[in-house]
Amino acid sequence: MKKLVVLTLAAAISAGMTAQDKNGGYNITQVPFTKVKVAQNTFWGQRLQASQDVTIPLAFSKNEETGRYSNFSNAAEHLKDPSKVFQIKEGTFSFDDTDPYKTIEGASYLLQTYPNAKFKGGRLDKYVDSVIAVIASGQEPDGYLYTSRTQNPEHPHPWAGKKRWEMVEDLSHEFYNLGHLCEAAVAHYYATGKRNLLDIAIKYADCVCREVGDNPGQASVVPGHQIAEMGLAKLYIATGDKKYLEQAKFFLDKRGKRDASWGGNENGQYDEKGYFHSHGLYDKGGYLHKLNQYSQSHKPVVEQDEAVGHAVRAGYMYAGMADIAALTGDQSYIDAIDRIWENIVSRKFYITGGVGATASGEAFGRNYELPNMTAYCETCAAIAQVYLNYRLFLLHGDSKYYDALERNLYNGVISGISIDGGNFFYPNPLESAGQHRRQPWFGCACCPSNAARFIPSLPQYIYAVKDNSLYINLFNSNTVNVQVGKKKVELEQQTNYPWDGDVTLKINGGAGEYALNIRIPGWVRGEVVPSDLYAFADGKQLGYTVKVNGQPVEGELQQGYFVIDRKWKKGDKVEVHFDMEPRVVRANDKVEADRGRVSVERGPIVYCAEWCDNQFDISTMIVNQKPQFQLGDKEIMSTNVKTLTTDAQSLLRDEHGKLQTADQHLVLIPYYAWAHRGAGKMSVWLPQSIVTLSVQGGKKR
Amino acid sequence: MKKLVVLTLAAAISAGMTAQDKNGGYNITQVPFTKVKVAQNTFWGQRLQASQDVTIPLAFSKNEETGRYSNFSNAAEHLKDPSKVFQIKEGTFSFDDTDPYKTIEGASYLLQTYPNAKFKGGRLDKYVDSVIAVIASGQEPDGYLYTSRTQNPEHPHPWAGKKRWEMVEDLSHEFYNLGHLCEAAVAHYYATGKRNLLDIAIKYADCVCREVGDNPGQASVVPGHQIAEMGLAKLYIATGDKKYLEQAKFFLDKRGKRDASWGGNENGQYDEKGYFHSHGLYDKGGYLHKLNQYSQSHKPVVEQDEAVGHAVRAGYMYAGMADIAALTGDQSYIDAIDRIWENIVSRKFYITGGVGATASGEAFGRNYELPNMTAYCETCAAIAQVYLNYRLFLLHGDSKYYDALERNLYNGVISGISIDGGNFFYPNPLESAGQHRRQPWFGCACCPSNAARFIPSLPQYIYAVKDNSLYINLFNSNTVNVQVGKKKVELEQQTNYPWDGDVTLKINGGAGEYALNIRIPGWVRGEVVPSDLYAFADGKQLGYTVKVNGQPVEGELQQGYFVIDRKWKKGDKVEVHFDMEPRVVRANDKVEADRGRVSVERGPIVYCAEWCDNQFDISTMIVNQKPQFQLGDKEIMSTNVKTLTTDAQSLLRDEHGKLQTADQHLVLIPYYAWAHRGAGKMSVWLPQSIVTLSVQGGKKR
Repeated sequence: MKKLVVLTLAAAISAGMTAQDKNGGYNITQVPFTKVKVAQNTFWGQRLQASQDVTIPLAFSKNEETGRYSNFSNAAEHLKDPSKVFQIKEGTFSFDDTDPYKTIEGASYLLQTYPNAKFKGGRLDKYVDSVIAVIASGQEPDGYLYTSRTQNPEHPHPWAGKKRWEMVEDLSHEFYNLGHLCEAAVAHYYATGKRNLLDIAIKYADCVCREVGDNPGQASVVPGHQIAEMGLAKLYIATGDKKYLEQAKFFLDKRGKRDASWGGNENGQYDEKGYFHSHGLYDKGGYLHKLNQYSQSHKPVVEQDEAVGHAVRAGYMYAGMADIAALTGDQSYIDAIDRIWENIVSRKFYITGGVGATASGEAFGRNYELPNMTAYCETCAAIAQVYLNYRLFLLHGDSKYYDALERNLYNGVISGISIDGGNFFYPNPLESAGQHRRQPWFGCACCPSNAARFIPSLPQYIYAVKDNSLYINLFNSNTVNVQVGKKKVELEQQTNYPWDGDVTLKINGGAGEYALNIRIPGWVRGEVVPSDLYAFADGKQLGYTVKVNGQPVEGELQQGYFVIDRKWKKGDKVEVHFDMEPRVVRANDKVEADRGRVSVERGPIVYCAEWCDNQFDISTMIVNQKPQFQLGDKEIMSTNVKTLTTDAQSLLRDEHGKLQTADQHLVLIPYYAWAHRGAGKMSVWLPQSIVTLSVQGGKKR
Repeated sequence: MKKLVVLTLAAAISAGMTAQDKNGGYNITQVPFTKVKVAQNTFWGQRLQASQDVTIPLAFSKNEETGRYSNFSNAAEHLKDPSKVFQIKEGTFSFDDTDPYKTIEGASYLLQTYPNAKFKGGRLDKYVDSVIAVIASGQEPDGYLYTSRTQNPEHPHPWAGKKRWEMVEDLSHEFYNLGHLCEAAVAHYYATGKRNLLDIAIKYADCVCREVGDNPGQASVVPGHQIAEMGLAKLYIATGDKKYLEQAKFFLDKRGKRDASWGGNENGQYDEKGYFHSHGLYDKGGYLHKLNQYSQSHKPVVEQDEAVGHAVRAGYMYAGMADIAALTGDQSYIDAIDRIWENIVSRKFYITGGVGATASGEAFGRNYELPNMTAYCETCAAIAQVYLNYRLFLLHGDSKYYDALERNLYNGVISGISIDGGNFFYPNPLESAGQHRRQPWFGCACCPSNAARFIPSLPQYIYAVKDNSLYINLFNSNTVNVQVGKKKVELEQQTNYPWDGDVTLKINGGAGEYALNIRIPGWVRGEVVPSDLYAFADGKQLGYTVKVNGQPVEGELQQGYFVIDRKWKKGDKVEVHFDMEPRVVRANDKVEADRGRVSVERGPIVYCAEWCDNQFDISTMIVNQKPQFQLGDKEIMSTNVKTLTTDAQSLLRDEHGKLQTADQHLVLIPYYAWAHRGAGKMSVWLPQSIVTLSVQGGKKR
């Protein structure tokens, strides 16, 4: 039933679109998560279950509790009776409307898999429809949807500005709200076939397209917080209406450019709320134009070559540039994000796949500035990196983007979401003195609501198709039904990855000639990340083997993929084995915080030392020069994790204050699993050097 | 003879000036270095001798060698024959003219003490006169003096700008050159009575007063690099012409203020030479106005409360504000520099008295950002702090400013100048892996030429007078002749300070009633710096005693001074004793770089560990929890220094890679004396904690 609706609409709009546009314009075809069934009681099966059982219900409940819905119903009341206004509450944000949008997006993925899912004893889809109805009620007649203003136009949220779009490059987030609305609306439409949220998004997007641009009478402004670029691209793909694509392109192309004729200027200043407004200029329309790295508006996007500023805004913008490049073929966008990606992975990428070194501005730091305890590594920024890495793979087909993505996923992303799906980290530091605690929600709720929308979409990142090739990018137990060339292929993947390195692929349907492109992870091939930012301590490569129907096969890797191009028949079996020896990693000496330290990995998992697994003060440890590891098991939050134990030594002072060493067994756990058993010390980077002064380096910063 | 000239001029101009103006406007009267004879073969006597024998001759020679003089003679040739132009040499700076000015300033101090000093076999005063004649020849007829343009007006130095003053807030340094010219001219005039350099300065200053200001047709711009404020204040005091004072005040008051009517804008950008031009605005006259912290023009000077940006510019500006405040009585200046000084000593002050945490922008860092190996601590910035601390003392009379000044002087300033006066550090790091070496000169020669002018002026910082009180601020063997109230006092100071803590003051002339205000250093009173930035590890106070003619006297300290107000007679003797026990210092835990570390001081001297005094790798040391010290002696560059030796332990690995500890004798030397015996490891902050992770702190930055 729902498929029919989608196809009908698709048919109606296809006249104006190319087939490639319908695939987002990318050369490589995405395999949507609906085609992939992840097995239960597996690594990702458990996470998907937690998302369904805990995160999404929690997010909806928090939306209710914290007045996210009443913002819309208040706006509706004001629209009915303009004498009614509602005071904006202290401590609320101008982007609070996005939390319901993001939760609906997550719920839509859920509904696509489980159309009869329940919530609060009733049907989840009915609940979602009721939320959408409330959202619709708060939309102004011309489509403008922004409860921070509509509830109380004379005294809107302090970040809203006096009029529409006035503060959108700064704090109002009107376009950020639009972006998340589009993302949610398209997901909901694809999942359910219903247009109720899509029509709201179209109406708001039309309002923006009318009022914002370079024509006379329009506000010539760009998003202060990006995501509208990705959202509008999706809206274009869903509707075929090219103006959304053009609007997204305007948002990118106008960024960082200023008319020489603009008068007046405003230096940085603090407003009465204590918020800092940095360098910007008001144009003759009274709109504030930001000229800063914080929102990546310091120069035109196609001239940028370093990842700077707010790490979520940045990641969303780069991902949006990939989307627009794919749809328009604009090579200058691709050149820019290629340069920026190189900068990230070679200068600004934590070993955990987190990005954003500094809490100040929630931002990328300087090149090689990667402090551990004060690492910001916002969960949303790690998710944004998944978006970017995925799109760069779709553009270029190189597995190195998946090496980065897998690192994001198994470490920096899921460290932000507790194993049971009910507690969250906003920043994800790589070292703790015990001051960090997971929380069930945040006033600024971007991270948990992003988790609610991201985790259910995970299955879409496992496979991809190009022409006659099926890419196997991530490893977990699942089945997939997918069109490869002219064949309908049914493939089954069985593995205990990431805990062991054996992956079996079975052809359950789809006989014929096509290729399986099996990703051989960078960590197998001796590469920590695709740059000299990190290196394995002993420089060694691990081994891997591939067998087809029990017979070893060999081949050169193509862009990091082991390609088996042959005639397949039902029952064919491919067995892949990756060596899973623990690996010791050193950082480039330019990374001050990691000098004299090592980190430990096994498979895609980065390990850490946590207080509760060790009988001694881990902050006094020194690990061996060539540490050996024993593999073990431990239960953390009702899930099994593999531990690594190694001999180490700790320093202590005897009763005379004299320095002594003591032999210790140091137990390491997966980084993502830390902070589930109370607060205490933790470190990813383990001291190994006996050098007590920081004399190893000393380059000028 | 020369005194007569000064008095004659002073009489001629005194009609327009108050008596206090002639004293720089300060409540406390400076005792010029000409009144103080520092004994030879003492700590400072050796430095003064080295300045005379080595630094000043070296500076003059370098000026010749590097074309500093030919810039002026080239300008002269162009002025005579405009068809002659001279290509600006690569690697030169738009402030190279200041090196001769600064050297003449140092030489003037020398000439005042030794009018018959020699240079290159001839008389130094004749040589200086010949340099002044060359300088005069390069001055344009209307007074403009800037060889970077006059040599080649069509193709001036790339930093000069196309027309006068156009780039003065940025890179041209036209006002910086004026400032150093005034400083040198006034010093030379006072020292020799000759007007030859003074007239050049007056002519250039008159040109600036005519062409720069807020009147129609004037360029409304301020110095990109400050010092003109101090220089013009001195020119006012020397000439009585109030317009110089007004111009200095304009430079301060205009800073950080912008007319709302200015059109156009220019975002930060790199020019073709690779120099970054940050946020600034061109006014309608085409002048670039900088709006940034780098040059302290981010807001009006009286609204500033944090030391930011380029640390030399900042120090000179704050000192200039003190000068103008003293002369004008403007309390808002004093309030601002009081706030800024509190910020410096409580957040941005190295234990060595150095300032400027970061090479990037040669600038102050964030609060508590005080890295050791990458510490910039430019020698010029430490000298600028002496200027500032001295002036704050002259304003407020509190000894805490001298505590800071003494710390600057014995550590961060003289670490920049080798003991023999012939090699220099530009940055003065607190830790080295052996990558740092003193150099005989620098292409950007500000630091050695600043040393050439600063060291000879040292004696002026020893004493000061207010009404009936004589301040004894610094301790060294010398004699002083000074007017205190109505008495002409002749005082002799005898001490081996800083190596021991006994100071004897003898009244050799000037019987009568007056007070001696003897500074009791903060380090005696249990205070490292006047804030919670550093503290003595054991919290203990040292003792001090004061005897008059052998009889102990007691008294409360007044603003940190032990005041003996009595009737003195010739032959009276005051004996002061300071306990000189070594002290262990800890930094505020917010200073990340110093966590788990201690530094060691004795008297005013900060100590360090250097490679060449120790039999083990000092980068593996851990000092004891309660270190005890033995005092020793060592000869470094033909001077005797006191060493401190303590028991410590080092870490090492045995042949199996297993961690071991070894007992060591750790020898410490005065920080200023490091890097005289080859390049190797050095550290001021000594590891004491056994914590190998940085888990002690973890505050967000």
